Amino acid sequence: MVAENKFDADIARDFHHVWHPCTQHKDYETASPILVERAEGIYFYDRQGKSYLDAIASWWVNLFGHNHPRLNAALTRQLENMAHVMFAGVTHQPAIDLADSLTALSPPELEKVFFSDNGSTAVEVALKMSLQYWQEKGETRKTRFVYLNGGYHGETLGALSVCGLEIFRGKFEQVLARHLPVEGPDCFRCPYGLRRESCDAECFEPMEKTLRENHDTIAGVIVEPLVQGAAGMTMYPPVYLKKLQAACEPLAIHIIFDEVAVAFGRTGSLFVCAAHGLRPTFLCLSKGITSGYLPLSATLTTDEIYSAFYGAPRKLFIHSHSYSANPLACAVANETLRMLTENNFLESLQPKIAALRECGKQFDGIAGEFRQTGMIAALELVEKKRERFPSEKRIGYQIFLEGLKRGLFLRPLGDVVYFMPPLVITEEEIAVMMNTAHDCINTVLQRG
Amino acid sequence: MVAENKFDADIARDFHHVWHPCTQHKDYETASPILVERAEGIYFYDRQGKSYLDAIASWWVNLFGHNHPRLNAALTRQLENMAHVMFAGVTHQPAIDLADSLTALSPPELEKVFFSDNGSTAVEVALKMSLQYWQEKGETRKTRFVYLNGGYHGETLGALSVCGLEIFRGKFEQVLARHLPVEGPDCFRCPYGLRRESCDAECFEPMEKTLRENHDTIAGVIVEPLVQGAAGMTMYPPVYLKKLQAACEPLAIHIIFDEVAVAFGRTGSLFVCAAHGLRPTFLCLSKGITSGYLPLSATLTTDEIYSAFYGAPRKLFIHSHSYSANPLACAVANETLRMLTENNFLESLQPKIAALRECGKQFDGIAGEFRQTGMIAALELVEKKRERFPSEKRIGYQIFLEGLKRGLFLRPLGDVVYFMPPLVITEEEIAVMMNTAHDCINTVLQRG
Repeated sequence: MVAENKFDADIARDFHHVWHPCTQHKDYETASPILVERAEGIYFYDRQGKSYLDAIASWWVNLFGHNHPRLNAALTRQLENMAHVMFAGVTHQPAIDLADSLTALSPPELEKVFFSDNGSTAVEVALKMSLQYWQEKGETRKTRFVYLNGGYHGETLGALSVCGLEIFRGKFEQVLARHLPVEGPDCFRCPYGLRRESCDAECFEPMEKTLRENHDTIAGVIVEPLVQGAAGMTMYPPVYLKKLQAACEPLAIHIIFDEVAVAFGRTGSLFVCAAHGLRPTFLCLSKGITSGYLPLSATLTTDEIYSAFYGAPRKLFIHSHSYSANPLACAVANETLRMLTENNFLESLQPKIAALRECGKQFDGIAGEFRQTGMIAALELVEKKRERFPSEKRIGYQIFLEGLKRGLFLRPLGDVVYFMPPLVITEEEIAVMMNTAHDCINTVLQRG
Repeated sequence: MVAENKFDADIARDFHHVWHPCTQHKDYETASPILVERAEGIYFYDRQGKSYLDAIASWWVNLFGHNHPRLNAALTRQLENMAHVMFAGVTHQPAIDLADSLTALSPPELEKVFFSDNGSTAVEVALKMSLQYWQEKGETRKTRFVYLNGGYHGETLGALSVCGLEIFRGKFEQVLARHLPVEGPDCFRCPYGLRRESCDAECFEPMEKTLRENHDTIAGVIVEPLVQGAAGMTMYPPVYLKKLQAACEPLAIHIIFDEVAVAFGRTGSLFVCAAHGLRPTFLCLSKGITSGYLPLSATLTTDEIYSAFYGAPRKLFIHSHSYSANPLACAVANETLRMLTENNFLESLQPKIAALRECGKQFDGIAGEFRQTGMIAALELVEKKRERFPSEKRIGYQIFLEGLKRGLFLRPLGDVVYFMPPLVITEEEIAVMMNTAHDCINTVLQRG
């Protein structure tokens, strides 16, 4: 690669020195990454000024669009006081306000907030708190977690040990702790022949059996409520979660809700648990918490858990990240929560959710399924009936490339094309986004 | 706790809703956390305006002091363009510049940079890259890591599996992968009766034996070069690292340098590896990378490692964090690197390092040992000769409380009182810091 101008020089430097996440760099030989220079609203712009509609909200994080004046102001206001101080022996108002708001807005049982930096660490904190809780209580055999096939909870090795997707864990099996995988909901290919709109989560049966037979060694169960993101935006009904709660509580099994991807308005409510009257023991949050500005995460839990760590000097929860409760990130998160809860913002999503559904109809006959939960929509493309395309066809990757040509940033998960735009997208922009995606899909499928 | 004013109300809200890292909250019944409102230079200030000298650089992160005009400007300048975009299929100049600078300044073999959010994830990335490298090469038995007793590399469960400190891992043993601990250097209590200034790292023998006997199942070795931070700022000579390199290279064992705590001028050089002509396979960086502003980390590695992941679609390294290469954090990191490399900044540390050493002399006869590596100094307090105080005496915690009274923020590790101030501290401020610490220690030790 010979650099002929600054653009080429920068792309060459990227190629020589940057290892991107979840990227096969050989693909950059034929299609360079987009060199983004600025971002505004639901678009980002490359150096030539070409715009891209950020249809997946920059990995599901952005709620209010890029470069939002209120979020920018919250950040610069905090910067005038302090960027950061450590968070042991020290506290600060941005973190106190955020913890107060999060506990007020989430189910009443969740009273304590532990801050870390990303979704993986939020999950690691929940796993470790659950484990230590049982150790402190003398229930030393309760050391296993139950997780769903298809579940994804981050990629640090603890989070990966409760991941139910071979593609993420396969190369690392030999160092992963052995937990308990369970067949979870698979509504598109329901083995019971039922429909998610009307079933009673008959597929809860294997979970019920696993919990009943192993409860004395189970610390907790971890789930992504309603939407399993990395599995391909698979969606299942809340009745599954109600059954999970009913089964876990009498057996003294913790419930970990990983709402990293689905909280903060993404499904139409602030938190899935609160919207459905559910009481998880732990609630993991990240991504949208700063509306796509800065890394921050939170693990919420109950006073019952907290109290098991309260008392003797050595009972404490020993876990720390240097930038825990970073004041800049907390300040942006506080502004994000204000914007989510003011001016009927969540109610204002309803027409957009309806527009997304309406636009989805154009994929009848093209996609195996169009599915939607709030502001998340997904198309599962299949070869015939419900059979997957051979992976070497790279259907999803081809659609990604077609999207780029048309100024639409998609990033299909395998052959599932999904939409998770910033919540501030308009109904008109939803139509543009989905019509353009339609073009891309048609082009690729007709190519064969 | 009844709130009588805004200060008390905020502290009460903190007590009710915030779970601080590495904190026994019962201690807050008698000593509230400091409610920090702003920070400037080497000080932070509570709501009453009382100042605290940040003697540990807010958990070892701050280099240039709080609220630095150049760092603030770098952040706000980047904010005008974009706070964040995803980092797969997309790139941006702040990340390209940072990767370019890091690879230029570190040993020449390190050519690729993978970004994540904190030290733990930087280590998890190195562990996972090493594991997958051997899988891709068909060396499927190479799945174990060697680590030192006393080593600390973060607290996510993968990082914790290579931690050599019982206090961090004890409650979680049942879910930690089994790796290979090795007795490491212990210079203060050297079992060979030698001195770190003149020895030949005779203590390398158990490491040499472990590597020789197990190399066919060893993926890599992980170390904190020169200073084992969480172990109590124990310090050992570079000859140990030279022997490690000489032993690992012919046995095809990766070397992971965890320089999260020691890089970016902390020991007097930018990177320990570069300063000593060493060639680690992986270099983990975080903390000082943004001079204490924002969470960011980097894992550097070689083209040899990278090339094993290059090619077929499924060979890629599947690991991602949503805020990977956050542009705001990268912009601050770029400014940090400029400041570290301009105007002979590192040379300007030499008189401060000398002042730290000079001031350390006042602890002769009080401390079991005063030790120093560059801008890190530590006092190990002992009961008599080299025996530790009983932990129930909480000597370190009492010194912490005495420091607060005097406006000095220390945070002893057990009975090791250490100093890791922002690098911009002056020689006069070093004297104040250490004289005040002397007072605190005397007060506590005389109390008995």
